[in-house]
Amino acid sequence: MKFNIALLAGDGIGPEVINEAVKVSDAIAKKFNHEITWTPALTGACAIDAVGVPYPDETHEVCMKADAVLFGAIGHPKYDNDPSAPVRPEQGLLLMRKKLGLFANVRPTFTFPSLIDNSPLKRERIEGTDLVFLRELTGGIYFGEKGRRDGGETAFDNCVYTRAEVQRLAKKGFELAMTRSKKLCCVDKANVLETSRLWRETVQAMEKDYPEVTVSYEFVDAVAMRLVQWPNSYDVLITENLFGDILTDEASVISGSMGLMPSASVGEHTSLYEPIHGSYPQATGLNIANPLATILSAAMMFEDAFGLKDEAEAIRAVVNKSLEQGVVTEDLAAKGTKAYKTSEVGDWLVENL
Amino acid sequence: MKFNIALLAGDGIGPEVINEAVKVSDAIAKKFNHEITWTPALTGACAIDAVGVPYPDETHEVCMKADAVLFGAIGHPKYDNDPSAPVRPEQGLLLMRKKLGLFANVRPTFTFPSLIDNSPLKRERIEGTDLVFLRELTGGIYFGEKGRRDGGETAFDNCVYTRAEVQRLAKKGFELAMTRSKKLCCVDKANVLETSRLWRETVQAMEKDYPEVTVSYEFVDAVAMRLVQWPNSYDVLITENLFGDILTDEASVISGSMGLMPSASVGEHTSLYEPIHGSYPQATGLNIANPLATILSAAMMFEDAFGLKDEAEAIRAVVNKSLEQGVVTEDLAAKGTKAYKTSEVGDWLVENL
Ligand SMILES: CC(C)[C@H](C(=O)O)[C@@H](O)C(=O)O
Ligand SMILES: CC(C)[C@H](C(=O)O)[C@@H](O)C(=O)O
Repeated sequence: MKFNIALLAGDGIGPEVINEAVKVSDAIAKKFNHEITWTPALTGACAIDAVGVPYPDETHEVCMKADAVLFGAIGHPKYDNDPSAPVRPEQGLLLMRKKLGLFANVRPTFTFPSLIDNSPLKRERIEGTDLVFLRELTGGIYFGEKGRRDGGETAFDNCVYTRAEVQRLAKKGFELAMTRSKKLCCVDKANVLETSRLWRETVQAMEKDYPEVTVSYEFVDAVAMRLVQWPNSYDVLITENLFGDILTDEASVISGSMGLMPSASVGEHTSLYEPIHGSYPQATGLNIANPLATILSAAMMFEDAFGLKDEAEAIRAVVNKSLEQGVVTEDLAAKGTKAYKTSEVGDWLVENL
Repeated sequence: MKFNIALLAGDGIGPEVINEAVKVSDAIAKKFNHEITWTPALTGACAIDAVGVPYPDETHEVCMKADAVLFGAIGHPKYDNDPSAPVRPEQGLLLMRKKLGLFANVRPTFTFPSLIDNSPLKRERIEGTDLVFLRELTGGIYFGEKGRRDGGETAFDNCVYTRAEVQRLAKKGFELAMTRSKKLCCVDKANVLETSRLWRETVQAMEKDYPEVTVSYEFVDAVAMRLVQWPNSYDVLITENLFGDILTDEASVISGSMGLMPSASVGEHTSLYEPIHGSYPQATGLNIANPLATILSAAMMFEDAFGLKDEAEAIRAVVNKSLEQGVVTEDLAAKGTKAYKTSEVGDWLVENL
């Protein structure tokens, strides 16, 4: 098969980890007789520096024409202390999600047996955890009307959801649950918010179309607790944009493998794959960042965007092997053992594929 | 001194745990020569059953006349599966907060050395944790306009904050930080929300009035992570209503002592003290619920509402003693040891005061 993949390396360690994912993807493509064309494009702080905006129209066109988008990370410290600066990298991210119609963010949290002791949680709490969040990504309070009144003394943000927006996200949730353990948790704050009541009633009405799926409804504050107490009691969770932002980040650190967690954002036109970690500016250019989350994001791309399960499994298998053999960057290296460089990990994976 | 305390036992285990707090408070009052008049009033599901509304006007009057309010828990399973029922216990809670002007919810998370192994977190992660959240409680998306449009197909919730609302909450945060380690963390989502940008700029402008306090600004998703990773790196945190709802619940389970965490809601007219746990309906009437969070809430009341630090310390000391000697309810009893009943714990505390 032939693929055209948009390559958005972004800022900080983005280019370094993307580089290794390209290496591994090319090796897989060679092995399985595919042909990948990579089309790089600018986004984030580097796009602001180059052309003044964080998500240029040219980048959007590259993404729209691509079969999938592979994304590194965005963000630069020079924007961090001024969240009201007129142009910021995150705006590019939000604009990209909206313009590409990436309405569902798929964020798995799972464990690697060899990394369980990295978790802040006790072993018996985290063992067996394998959950997936589907976070709504193009609606809610992120995209509602916002502004000031009373000469700047009053600020407002509107949270808005339509039934259709809830349905398309929930549909993905039910479908995913059908491929897993058939358990779906709808996370809301229906005891306080009208948008949450719309979420709940919409999902309740869809239950009859998926009679095999057992649906539970939990309040966001209760989920924030249980994620720390018994993460292994969850399977598929669906939720709105802001709750998803908070809970998926919380979930990402409990596994002890945050540097390894991939994610996908799927939607109307194309889909985007990215590691869940940030741009880690302090490590930029040092060749020490862990490339595995990006490489596992590429695996998700092979499986979900191109339907190539064997290729994805081959990547996951070699990543597992590298972990077992301790071919890892400094964040995962055991005390007293050698830490590999970012590019060395990629090279090793390619050799061992 | 003479105090008039409104006693809102509420639902589920509320009456049982409140009962023990009253016993202990009366014993302390006797010991230190104070006189307490308790005025019971209805709230929650029991108020709906009795008079049709969850926060009756009579209850409001009792609270307004009182020097402080001691609160148990509200909520009943018969309302749980229908968050859009026209009358629900939680509405009483929100109405009470608003009408009593309880704008700041003070929620500490700390550890008891003897309970550290109950934490889902590893010992080295949780040891030394001693943080306090100040959650804004009468504004934001909880109280903004909400409703439906397009024949019910679109739902909305407005989040609104004024600078004055932020200032009065932040002022309490700065003042609290001055009495502790002089570290304040403002939790927001200023990279996305206009209300968060108002929060951040307002707190930034107040920094000059508290030159000794070191203020940090963190995004809510980052805090959701660090609370699990390094909770002991936080001291005082201030945040808006919805973020506070989620993060304080997350924080409450990390200590391993959730059944022991007290809280206060302070405001314009009076202040209210309550355990942070829920109404635990399954345990109602069984005399097994842990009364310590309510008793420690009474201690907070003595110290903060009445300025009686010795009385508060005496309560805390005897609670510590009961923990050390294993005089605890079944949730805390070590395997193979005797679990005390709710009322037995109260009796023991009174005897050992
Ligand atoms: C950078 C920020 C706007 C973004 C979000 O809140 O969605 C990030 O936290 C994420 O989760 O991808
Ligand atoms: C019951 C609910 C309305 C309430 C809230 O969200 O404030 C509760 O979760 C709390 O934190 O006191």
